[in-house]
Amino acid sequence: MFYHQKKLQYFKPPQKPDAVYAMKIQELIGGTFGEMTVMMQYLFQGWNCRGPAKYRDMLLDIGTEEIGHIEMLATMIAHLLDKAPVKVQEEGAKDAVVGAVMGGTNPREMIMAAAMNPQHAIVSGLGAMPADSVGFPWNGRFIVASGNLMADFRSNLHAETQGRLQAVRMYEMSDDPGVKDTLSFMIARDTMHQNQWEAAIEDLQQSGLESTPVPSSFPLELEKREVAYQFWNHSDGNESAEGRWAKGRSMDGKGEFQYIEHPQPLGPEPQPPQPDPKLHGTPQHRQTDGNGSSAPPLVDRINIRS
Amino acid sequence: MFYHQKKLQYFKPPQKPDAVYAMKIQELIGGTFGEMTVMMQYLFQGWNCRGPAKYRDMLLDIGTEEIGHIEMLATMIAHLLDKAPVKVQEEGAKDAVVGAVMGGTNPREMIMAAAMNPQHAIVSGLGAMPADSVGFPWNGRFIVASGNLMADFRSNLHAETQGRLQAVRMYEMSDDPGVKDTLSFMIARDTMHQNQWEAAIEDLQQSGLESTPVPSSFPLELEKREVAYQFWNHSDGNESAEGRWAKGRSMDGKGEFQYIEHPQPLGPEPQPPQPDPKLHGTPQHRQTDGNGSSAPPLVDRINIRS
Amino acid sequence: MFYHQKKLQYFKPPQKPDAVYAMKIQELIGGTFGEMTVMMQYLFQGWNCRGPAKYRDMLLDIGTEEIGHIEMLATMIAHLLDKAPVKVQEEGAKDAVVGAVMGGTNPREMIMAAAMNPQHAIVSGLGAMPADSVGFPWNGRFIVASGNLMADFRSNLHAETQGRLQAVRMYEMSDDPGVKDTLSFMIARDTMHQNQWEAAIEDLQQSGLESTPVPSSFPLELEKREVAYQFWNHSDGNESAEGRWAKGRSMDGKGEFQYIEHPQPLGPEPQPPQPDPKLHGTPQHRQTDGNGSSAPPLVDRINIRS
Amino acid sequence: MFYHQKKLQYFKPPQKPDAVYAMKIQELIGGTFGEMTVMMQYLFQGWNCRGPAKYRDMLLDIGTEEIGHIEMLATMIAHLLDKAPVKVQEEGAKDAVVGAVMGGTNPREMIMAAAMNPQHAIVSGLGAMPADSVGFPWNGRFIVASGNLMADFRSNLHAETQGRLQAVRMYEMSDDPGVKDTLSFMIARDTMHQNQWEAAIEDLQQSGLESTPVPSSFPLELEKREVAYQFWNHSDGNESAEGRWAKGRSMDGKGEFQYIEHPQPLGPEPQPPQPDPKLHGTPQHRQTDGNGSSAPPLVDRINIRS
Amino acid sequence: MFYHQKKLQYFKPPQKPDAVYAMKIQELIGGTFGEMTVMMQYLFQGWNCRGPAKYRDMLLDIGTEEIGHIEMLATMIAHLLDKAPVKVQEEGAKDAVVGAVMGGTNPREMIMAAAMNPQHAIVSGLGAMPADSVGFPWNGRFIVASGNLMADFRSNLHAETQGRLQAVRMYEMSDDPGVKDTLSFMIARDTMHQNQWEAAIEDLQQSGLESTPVPSSFPLELEKREVAYQFWNHSDGNESAEGRWAKGRSMDGKGEFQYIEHPQPLGPEPQPPQPDPKLHGTPQHRQTDGNGSSAPPLVDRINIRS
Amino acid sequence: MFYHQKKLQYFKPPQKPDAVYAMKIQELIGGTFGEMTVMMQYLFQGWNCRGPAKYRDMLLDIGTEEIGHIEMLATMIAHLLDKAPVKVQEEGAKDAVVGAVMGGTNPREMIMAAAMNPQHAIVSGLGAMPADSVGFPWNGRFIVASGNLMADFRSNLHAETQGRLQAVRMYEMSDDPGVKDTLSFMIARDTMHQNQWEAAIEDLQQSGLESTPVPSSFPLELEKREVAYQFWNHSDGNESAEGRWAKGRSMDGKGEFQYIEHPQPLGPEPQPPQPDPKLHGTPQHRQTDGNGSSAPPLVDRINIRS
Repeated sequence: MFYHQKKLQYFKPPQKPDAVYAMKIQELIGGTFGEMTVMMQYLFQGWNCRGPAKYRDMLLDIGTEEIGHIEMLATMIAHLLDKAPVKVQEEGAKDAVVGAVMGGTNPREMIMAAAMNPQHAIVSGLGAMPADSVGFPWNGRFIVASGNLMADFRSNLHAETQGRLQAVRMYEMSDDPGVKDTLSFMIARDTMHQNQWEAAIEDLQQSGLESTPVPSSFPLELEKREVAYQFWNHSDGNESAEGRWAKGRSMDGKGEFQYIEHPQPLGPEPQPPQPDPKLHGTPQHRQTDGNGSSAPPLVDRINIRS
Repeated sequence: MFYHQKKLQYFKPPQKPDAVYAMKIQELIGGTFGEMTVMMQYLFQGWNCRGPAKYRDMLLDIGTEEIGHIEMLATMIAHLLDKAPVKVQEEGAKDAVVGAVMGGTNPREMIMAAAMNPQHAIVSGLGAMPADSVGFPWNGRFIVASGNLMADFRSNLHAETQGRLQAVRMYEMSDDPGVKDTLSFMIARDTMHQNQWEAAIEDLQQSGLESTPVPSSFPLELEKREVAYQFWNHSDGNESAEGRWAKGRSMDGKGEFQYIEHPQPLGPEPQPPQPDPKLHGTPQHRQTDGNGSSAPPLVDRINIRS
Repeated sequence: MFYHQKKLQYFKPPQKPDAVYAMKIQELIGGTFGEMTVMMQYLFQGWNCRGPAKYRDMLLDIGTEEIGHIEMLATMIAHLLDKAPVKVQEEGAKDAVVGAVMGGTNPREMIMAAAMNPQHAIVSGLGAMPADSVGFPWNGRFIVASGNLMADFRSNLHAETQGRLQAVRMYEMSDDPGVKDTLSFMIARDTMHQNQWEAAIEDLQQSGLESTPVPSSFPLELEKREVAYQFWNHSDGNESAEGRWAKGRSMDGKGEFQYIEHPQPLGPEPQPPQPDPKLHGTPQHRQTDGNGSSAPPLVDRINIRS
Repeated sequence: MFYHQKKLQYFKPPQKPDAVYAMKIQELIGGTFGEMTVMMQYLFQGWNCRGPAKYRDMLLDIGTEEIGHIEMLATMIAHLLDKAPVKVQEEGAKDAVVGAVMGGTNPREMIMAAAMNPQHAIVSGLGAMPADSVGFPWNGRFIVASGNLMADFRSNLHAETQGRLQAVRMYEMSDDPGVKDTLSFMIARDTMHQNQWEAAIEDLQQSGLESTPVPSSFPLELEKREVAYQFWNHSDGNESAEGRWAKGRSMDGKGEFQYIEHPQPLGPEPQPPQPDPKLHGTPQHRQTDGNGSSAPPLVDRINIRS
Repeated sequence: MFYHQKKLQYFKPPQKPDAVYAMKIQELIGGTFGEMTVMMQYLFQGWNCRGPAKYRDMLLDIGTEEIGHIEMLATMIAHLLDKAPVKVQEEGAKDAVVGAVMGGTNPREMIMAAAMNPQHAIVSGLGAMPADSVGFPWNGRFIVASGNLMADFRSNLHAETQGRLQAVRMYEMSDDPGVKDTLSFMIARDTMHQNQWEAAIEDLQQSGLESTPVPSSFPLELEKREVAYQFWNHSDGNESAEGRWAKGRSMDGKGEFQYIEHPQPLGPEPQPPQPDPKLHGTPQHRQTDGNGSSAPPLVDRINIRS
Repeated sequence: MFYHQKKLQYFKPPQKPDAVYAMKIQELIGGTFGEMTVMMQYLFQGWNCRGPAKYRDMLLDIGTEEIGHIEMLATMIAHLLDKAPVKVQEEGAKDAVVGAVMGGTNPREMIMAAAMNPQHAIVSGLGAMPADSVGFPWNGRFIVASGNLMADFRSNLHAETQGRLQAVRMYEMSDDPGVKDTLSFMIARDTMHQNQWEAAIEDLQQSGLESTPVPSSFPLELEKREVAYQFWNHSDGNESAEGRWAKGRSMDGKGEFQYIEHPQPLGPEPQPPQPDPKLHGTPQHRQTDGNGSSAPPLVDRINIRS
């Protein structure tokens, strides 16, 4: 069960409205790596967790924190959209210098009204939306909750990495002190969360519950070990031979990397079986029915047999 | 530019058709972590890569390998769907023991025909589809290519982790020696690829190009450092205090973890600005217009001013 | 900011696992009218609310309650999926009565393994997912937060109506006392929430902030009043003349319903303008260029002019 | 079966092309509450209707009217896109006042060409599309047809409410007399349709077929009546106590509202069952297999048993 | 503007309910090539048509016919879902032969209840839905209306081809005389419509408005003519040399097919430009800032310059 | 299995960056008819092909070529986004002519930064994405692979037709010699590919494997032949009588076109069966239960019977 507390975790309002920036910062709410993703991802991982209690508790702690991050960004968007000009002005009289160019309209406003997310005006009435910076809605396929904690902690580390990268890019794209201040709080939390998932990975590994390759509970002898440490060079050129992945002990300590410079197929040519005539796909050879028609009465005879 | 070689990288055909298994193994082609995802993810990362040549080359090597993995699974699905019964039989005469129950129909076939992916019959004519195990189409939001290699390598590590986990689960869900043999090859490649991305992360870190927190090129003093290593305990109970993330040196070596047992908001209550009357949202107070109407002629007067 | 409390708002575990029912009850989590929808809808409406404080507070209260409803259903799904048979068994020996039919396999298990949501095994490891009963992911277009409270309260009333209808249907589709008990709690909350939104609509109407037609702040004289109370009978037959909508005082008290038995168009035939030749659409008449070619060098000349 | 009549229900062409406005007005065609939604919603409700004939007839009347509304808007978009400049001009010579700023290009055209929906040029050749104002395609999850007429009429009332709100916003965002005139017709029809659904709700209620709580055919004694009229205050502060929903007779006349100021959970802590080892999720305790390996050969032994 | 006529274009009811077939036949309503697609495709093409009047009229004729096809299939689905068992029965006593296997339940019903589309029960109350056979919603990206009539007629020919193929497959998957009779009407209409689009292509070609390659109004000399008739053999083996596409006069009569057995790249290696440091992508070389830090204070200095 | 060759099939870099054009040209990568579609469509058709070897080989040749086309466009986008201004500049001092209008900012840059695809900066770090020109992700429903080669070749012809049309439109929308040169290569390949699919259709027809109507293996006597060549005039006016489709020999040579000027329904009024009370839909008549309640205790009694 959940409770709400009216104050925001942290917040400085933007100094000025900026409808285009409001459109862009939607990425941090409803984008693939927005706050909706981490919130839902951690809550579902927590709810589905059957591992040790500390992991479940920790997942629900951070998932609950993230709900509040959406709240902060939604509040920021409401401010950024304040008094957004929603009408692209007509050009006016041409007799003044400014008028000659923009017909008396403030050019920045004209651009803002043309390039903002139209749904911020038409659909949400100047409020945040559960969508990304191009208006694509957040969806449930954005989250990962597999039941295997190592698989999920790696996902979480990557989500916070993409998340911090995007928040930093938004920081660089603003000159507004309020926006920058609020983002500097969120970027710091992402620093914590990257550290947190690295710590959780170490913690889980030391518990002996999971290790590379994940899932570690699957017996290695059931996989084709002979190809388990080979790098296949599928392109011409071999700069890829210079990397750590091409030679030396494998990272799981269970094999030796090999560089296969000229990889060759180990399998046969595919021979997909001939199509069921009931589905009227094209077979390898024409079915002759004695009367030369290209529409043989296959079906009736087949029906009898089926 | 790309070339195709007719033989498969590896393949053993299934011993028996199984339309329900064909439906399920679509997850490994078109699911969030299916082969289409890793193929497209590595190719786009490679095409967009501006980092050292070895990374670009390596990304295109593995992306090219993954195209062939879709090919292997597509071939397997064609075999699994061979002669799939597509019609759910009517119940027939009731005079025999078997007939008493299933009307003369093979019950396994009846279940197969009812529970298979209907599109395998109606849409693809018994061929593989670019969709997952519930028929949801693969889409471009499944992939990650951010331009920051550390962010992407972490994504790749996680994708191969989820991918191997899912392949292992499919292995457990089959009794067919051909299916299991082919999967054991793919599982081994996933072992390599988990190792590969761990190696690539180490390689990149040692190059000095990226480190935690990512992106490392963003000056730490621009984030709110005071909250950069705090764990906020947002739920009752504190099992989460027991983890590595709650105390000790942070993983990036740049701070000390702190456990905030009773986190309090640092921000104010939100005060979203009052709505623009042109958008006809609900304001805090009723706009009185002197004539008591609840539909005041706001618009005209506003139009004049705007 | 939000807090989590470990106990569930209400819960009785199911008596028996049932993987097919687990698939179906996903509708109440991630379907169009599942708990994810009402949770997100009320939270976004609350965060975007600029109306009187009591509405904002109320929206955040109920939105916060709904997060806990997802938690209850996620827990139920974990129980329903416990020990779900994930492998569709082969048919075995045919020498026994049962074996003759199902090859020694429990037929209910065989059906369950074939017809369950495959992603519950492959993707989530027997946990709940942010998707509906056919595996389609929840998405942000499911929610409504328009900034106009009457528009949104009507949406909320309808969401709780659909939601209770679906919960009742799920109740009818189960024989499990635990499932039925938990659902009877949720159905009762839906009763409250239908009442709540009816009350909120009355409350808002009495505040004078909104009335029919919504938005009431738009001056009625700006719409074509002559068609504002006409029912147009677009189909043959006129059973539709018998309804309340076809005669008498209009519900907003501002007009009189009229039944137009033989509606006629008031507009002209459309005359879409001829296509820009640069876009190579098909025009009404062939553009002759003097040399009879069907590929006239339009472009060059156009480029000069543009 | 349907027939088409060439004239439009109503139409005034726009005075001037405006590609950005064309992009925005797509919301009224293919948005969540666009004409495609109401058309499809009413037709599917009509086709699926098993209630009294007058409802079915009425639903098909209005559904058929709505097809013509898409037609009107599609025609308007064709006009708005007429001669839309599709190329963002280069900057030219800098020697004149205007040239100093925009290089000889009309600035409004430059903004239009940059900010228009690119698919209006590339994909549709300056025609309307079945998508919303950010280019997201209309989809079938936008509509509601539940088989319960009260549930659906409430949905319809809300759809027409959102629809009129959005049409009014578009009206406010235009200065074009043709656009405004055509919209004033559509806004008036939305006034009718809000009235119509309120009338239909009253009509249905008086028929005794449905009442609050919906579905009314579900016996109230099967829900947990003790929580059926409680408002749970999940957030700090209690402004929400001031509303009609917090005290007094419930709207269905079957209970009394109660305000629960400090809500407490009624359920236990969740105890999701331990994971099936075949799915390789992370369990609460490490499975020891006597040889200290973190990859115990679980599978083989399990296979034997399964 | 449109009118509705209560009778169906054609219809025979199914003899028996069959919930699994109801799920499958949704493909013909809401699948990629279902009736919703052709209806919307022809209507949008008609509304957007600027070509000769006969094309516009014809497009609106057939688009209007297709609305009625959805109506026929929706009616069929209502019949197929009549009295669908929605509850997967528990197994009962084991003392009888039948009971030993299915616990007294009709096995066909058990399979039907498990494998049907759950939304047919929970969401639509046994009515048709705007979705395909796996429950994926119809969406606007399924249709094509490009403004170029030849491009669109080719699309229409292909849509009717896929549509007839799918209807034929559904015909083969049924034993019900009512279903088969109704489908035999729809299949015949698809025969007409394939013929119709072939006729329309011929008609358009003879009008001189369009020819291969489409769009024919683009001057051929602006394309790289030297590669306009070459077949590139990108795979090993050269069975592809045997086809009509590999030699002889090209189909447009404007060139000669050439078979390039060993295709070689004509372009350079890609050299994507180095990333903007503000976006914190990974560059080719580490940016040294004199103090050895991997997080150089790039931003501040960049901000000054920007 | 596949191999990569580092050089591009063809490429000329753009002369200047242009972030808005980069957004638009995404249509050619990830749009409905972008290179991702043709690549995936041909590869899946090839992998699923059971027809003669020459078709399979040819499909894989062209599918493999198309991977390289994505690569070319991805490289072009990297160049177009080079040094894209990502920040919408504030207005500065007003003392100069230019400053009076744009505050010292380059207006083209300001428009570019406002109207570009925000994800090109935030998500991909100035790289190409698997999405279209409005940022909607490519998805698997865009492709067609039916198992029937004629159905698929018609789809392929149409895809290349739409593809060339869109490439030509992009060509017209650019002034950049590099962009135009590269596009002129791709347009020429589309010329080849239109010719190729026309050739493949002829080739397949001459093989006797398929003809109109497709699928030709379905016996014509099983369809309602009496409506197989009728054009139904569903709209007022009869310009549609003037086309080739309205009279004369049908294109398949098996019938005669007929123009039905006043089409009448051949079917009855729909009579959908009454709803199952367990699903709580609205029935035609109120169910009376003797106590006048509108919520009769149906359920209990039904449960007993079920």
